[in-house]
Amino acid sequence: MQDPQSRTEISQLGEFGLIERLTAGFEPKLSNTWKGIGDDAAGISVGEQVILTSTDLLTEGVHFDLSYTPLKHLGYKAVMVNLSDIAAMNAIPDHILVSLAVSNRFSVEALEELYDGIRLACDLYNIDLIGGDTTSSLSGLTISVTAFGIAPEKRISSRLGANEGDLLVVSGDLGAAYMGLQLLEREKQVFEAAPQAQPKLEGADYQLERQLKPEARVDVVRKLRELDLVPTSMIDISDGLASEIFHLTSTNHLGCQLYEEKIPIDKSTYDLAREFNLDPTVCALSGGEDYELLFTIPQADFDKVKNHPDFSVIGHMTDAKSGNQLVTKSGVQTPLTAQGWDGLKTS
Amino acid sequence: MQDPQSRTEISQLGEFGLIERLTAGFEPKLSNTWKGIGDDAAGISVGEQVILTSTDLLTEGVHFDLSYTPLKHLGYKAVMVNLSDIAAMNAIPDHILVSLAVSNRFSVEALEELYDGIRLACDLYNIDLIGGDTTSSLSGLTISVTAFGIAPEKRISSRLGANEGDLLVVSGDLGAAYMGLQLLEREKQVFEAAPQAQPKLEGADYQLERQLKPEARVDVVRKLRELDLVPTSMIDISDGLASEIFHLTSTNHLGCQLYEEKIPIDKSTYDLAREFNLDPTVCALSGGEDYELLFTIPQADFDKVKNHPDFSVIGHMTDAKSGNQLVTKSGVQTPLTAQGWDGLKTS
Repeated sequence: MQDPQSRTEISQLGEFGLIERLTAGFEPKLSNTWKGIGDDAAGISVGEQVILTSTDLLTEGVHFDLSYTPLKHLGYKAVMVNLSDIAAMNAIPDHILVSLAVSNRFSVEALEELYDGIRLACDLYNIDLIGGDTTSSLSGLTISVTAFGIAPEKRISSRLGANEGDLLVVSGDLGAAYMGLQLLEREKQVFEAAPQAQPKLEGADYQLERQLKPEARVDVVRKLRELDLVPTSMIDISDGLASEIFHLTSTNHLGCQLYEEKIPIDKSTYDLAREFNLDPTVCALSGGEDYELLFTIPQADFDKVKNHPDFSVIGHMTDAKSGNQLVTKSGVQTPLTAQGWDGLKTS
Repeated sequence: MQDPQSRTEISQLGEFGLIERLTAGFEPKLSNTWKGIGDDAAGISVGEQVILTSTDLLTEGVHFDLSYTPLKHLGYKAVMVNLSDIAAMNAIPDHILVSLAVSNRFSVEALEELYDGIRLACDLYNIDLIGGDTTSSLSGLTISVTAFGIAPEKRISSRLGANEGDLLVVSGDLGAAYMGLQLLEREKQVFEAAPQAQPKLEGADYQLERQLKPEARVDVVRKLRELDLVPTSMIDISDGLASEIFHLTSTNHLGCQLYEEKIPIDKSTYDLAREFNLDPTVCALSGGEDYELLFTIPQADFDKVKNHPDFSVIGHMTDAKSGNQLVTKSGVQTPLTAQGWDGLKTS
């Protein structure tokens, strides 16, 4: 019998450990459950189609700081985070539900700003908002978005399916959203110390936009279709490249060889990291919220992504016992460590 | 141009007014959007099937009080509220997503209790939990559940479709959940004044269970199928009978004649209301959280529900200009007033 006095702190388990413990025993029992817990999106079969769905809960003070996040940007980002999860299944998102819990600190006009961002996201990505729930909270703002997408089963890429020897490919570039956050946090501290000081944000438009107004790479899903390329596995980069590589290798019982020199980092991100005395590679590996897509493809498909402006081949999958290895620019091989962002540890 | 100083309080609009204002301009643009904002569930077409989905956000201190709500019951109820929305479309729910935002006040063991309730609901209602999100909050507990169900389009009953002359039918009995809440609130006050006092909850098991552990009437959906009866319109009673009648009549541009003597109230609920010096009819009309189903059927189908133990015919639909009328037990006709529970007004 359990000791009634025993108390395990949530922080002892971390996000993934907690989810694993809470959802133990929730095995799928219905024949039309295509994918349950543990991927970017869940799936329900309807004939040969699969309805993919994913949900995220964003809470004030944990996921966003309203002292530097405009509400319109927050609304936009809340949608993007979820569209990204559907894109990460190699599917085009089409519908969303949006729920809000708000304290009386917020005016109707403030919520309209938030919805302006949601509306912009829906317009640009051709999404229908079809429902949700709006209620009050005793304190703060909580946003819950659920996204949907439909795709034929054979075109979906889940986290499972990578094979030894597959190439590891990433879209876009990494680390910029993290540097945008560093910049905003620095200026917030300067402002708190000296409210009259002007914020120094010039020349970092790209990093600020990646942090405040990220884009879901639905365009990548379309490009993969044009290339007639179905990744063997796929995940979106919300918690940092290293953390997502660990998800892919552990799900597929594989290892990975990652080449530092191949990791795409924009020059302005590189320079800004240096200005902050940060290692740009660490920013790319451990900084989250880039919302790029990370996927594996058979070596035979290399020509389809070679020299493609949107894609970088950054490594390849190995056997499990080789582990996850980073080959540094100086040619040294070192074990990769996962330091993804953990939403359960409040800063 | 809008005055930047203007500030409209959320409480000025209420839940439905706020939703209307925020979602203005979100017209569906996709051909597979079967039902958007404004029903118990939204719908996405996949061939001849419709995926129905509904979501609810429950926040501590607004929707539940942990001083008298066991976490296991809370988990169970959070699922039921959403299953009820799918049942209200005349569909069988089959999948859920569950998201939590929790402060460090909660231990892992506490969350396991919550999940015990969610698991029980999934087992009893044959539901697969397929995903969600678990994150931290600065204070309190927020639960977001999204439910799904699939049904052929022709068998779905939305809020729209009632005709003049249709009979108004309700399942089960009303007012019990509200009386359960009154009892719990009274005992909480007694406890706060005198912590040694024993709670007086005897003889009110039914009302307490209706409040703390409500059941979604998925069985009613099955019974309607057995009766080969597709309601012309349907809604679930979450905010009180009167409020739901107003939703049905305004959606269908109709009026309604409701007979007080036909409103089903359990004898123990009636007696408890009297003990609290409350009008039992008002409890049924305005007390929420019964999660019974309210629906309309053609008069030609009267024989199918006549003397059925689960159904009460409580009135009929009239033309819009007749309004919503209550015929009291003494035969007096009086306009019905809607006083549903408003989740945006914190108590």
